[in-house]
Amino acid sequence: MSIPASDADDSVSAGELSARYDTFVVDLLGSIAYGELSAFERLAIDARHSPSLGDRAVLGKMAVSEFGHYEAICARLNAMGMDPELAMAPFVRMVDSFHERTRPADWHESLMKAYVVETITEEFYAAIAEHLDDATREAIAGVHTSDEQIETLTSLLKTMLAEDPRLSSRLALWGRRMVGEALTQVQRIGAKHSFLVGLRPDATQEQAAAEVQTILSALTRNHSKRMSKLGLTA
Amino acid sequence: MSIPASDADDSVSAGELSARYDTFVVDLLGSIAYGELSAFERLAIDARHSPSLGDRAVLGKMAVSEFGHYEAICARLNAMGMDPELAMAPFVRMVDSFHERTRPADWHESLMKAYVVETITEEFYAAIAEHLDDATREAIAGVHTSDEQIETLTSLLKTMLAEDPRLSSRLALWGRRMVGEALTQVQRIGAKHSFLVGLRPDATQEQAAAEVQTILSALTRNHSKRMSKLGLTA
Repeated sequence: MSIPASDADDSVSAGELSARYDTFVVDLLGSIAYGELSAFERLAIDARHSPSLGDRAVLGKMAVSEFGHYEAICARLNAMGMDPELAMAPFVRMVDSFHERTRPADWHESLMKAYVVETITEEFYAAIAEHLDDATREAIAGVHTSDEQIETLTSLLKTMLAEDPRLSSRLALWGRRMVGEALTQVQRIGAKHSFLVGLRPDATQEQAAAEVQTILSALTRNHSKRMSKLGLTA
Repeated sequence: MSIPASDADDSVSAGELSARYDTFVVDLLGSIAYGELSAFERLAIDARHSPSLGDRAVLGKMAVSEFGHYEAICARLNAMGMDPELAMAPFVRMVDSFHERTRPADWHESLMKAYVVETITEEFYAAIAEHLDDATREAIAGVHTSDEQIETLTSLLKTMLAEDPRLSSRLALWGRRMVGEALTQVQRIGAKHSFLVGLRPDATQEQAAAEVQTILSALTRNHSKRMSKLGLTA
C-alpha cells in the first residue's frame, strides 16, 4: 500500500508509519462499512413513518444504495486481506448508540435525519479521503449518495415546510441536534481509534487536532448553508 | 392486453371479461408490489437479530433484492397506465397484519420466516402466473429470489439445527405457524379481491375454488418436502 509522502522525524521508522497508516485505513473503512450497514437498516425502518407508499420508497431506495456502499467497502477490505467483520466490530456500539439517540419520532424527522446525516457524512469522508492512497480514496469515493437522491430529499423537505410553517422551528431544532450528535460522534470515534490523528501518519498530535478542527468547521459551515436554503436557522 | 382463451357462456360479454381480467392483474401486481416492499422492510429489521455482522448482511442482501422486485412490479403497473400506489393500497392492512402476527422473536425465527415465506410466495406467484398473459407473466417471473440466496438460507438453517438440536421442535412449530398464516393470507386476499377467483376470468366460482385448492395443496406439499430436508416435521 502506498503511503502519502512523509516528512516525519527520524524517531519514527518507516515501518512504524506504514503500520500506523494501515491501521488507520482499516479503522476508517471499518467505520464506514458499519455506518453504511446501519444506515441501510435505519432508513428501511424510518421509511415506515412515511405518509404515502410513494414517499416510503424514497427512503427505501436510499437504504438500498447504502447497502451497495456497505458491500463495496467490504470488498475493498477483503482485497486488503482484512476481515470486514473484524474491521467493523469496534464501531458497532458507537454507531448504534448514535442511532438510538437520534431516533426520528415521525416522517418529518426521518427525512431531516436522512438529509443531515447523509450530507455531513459524505463531506466528512471526502475531506479525509483527500489525504489517502489512491485505492482507498477510490473506494471511499464510491460511497456517494446520488445527487438525484439528495435533490429528492431537499424537495420533499421544502414541500413539507411550505405546507406546514409551524414545522420550521421543530425541524431547525432537530437539525441542530442531528449535526451536534454527528460531529460529537466523529470526534469520539477519532479520539478512540487513532482515526483522525492518523490523517497524516507523520503529524504531531497538535497538527492532527488542528486539521480535524478545520474539517469540522467546514462541515458545520456547509451544514448551515444547507439549512438556510431550506429556510431554517442552523 | 391479451386475455387467455375464453369459453365463457354468452351471458358474460367479452368486454366484461376483459375488465374483470384487468382488475385481477392489477390486484395481483398491487399485492405483489406491496408484499415485496414490506418484505424489504421486515427483512432489514429482522436482520438486526443476527448473531454476527456477516449473517446480518445475508438478510440485508435479500431485503435489497426484494426492493428491486418492488420497483420492477411498479414499473409494470406504470407501463399499464396504473398508479402503483393505488394498486397497492387495498393490501397494506392485510400484509402488515400478517407481519405483525409473524414477528420473529430471534435470529432463528427470522431465518426460518425468510425461508418459508420466500419459497411459498414464489411458488404461489409462479402457479398463478401460468394462467396469465405474457407481459404479466414476465413481470412476475422477475420476482424471483436467487437460488444462491435460498441455498445460503438453507445452509444457515442446517448449521443452526445441527449446532442446537433442541431448536428442531421450536422451529418446526414456527414453520407450521408461518405456513398456516401464509396460506390463510392467500385465501383471505383471494376472497376479498376477486384475486384467485379471477384465475380464469370465465370460470365459475366452483371451478375457481377447486383451482385454488389445487394450488394450495401443492404449496403445502412442497413446503413439507423442504421441512423434511431440514430434518423438521412440517
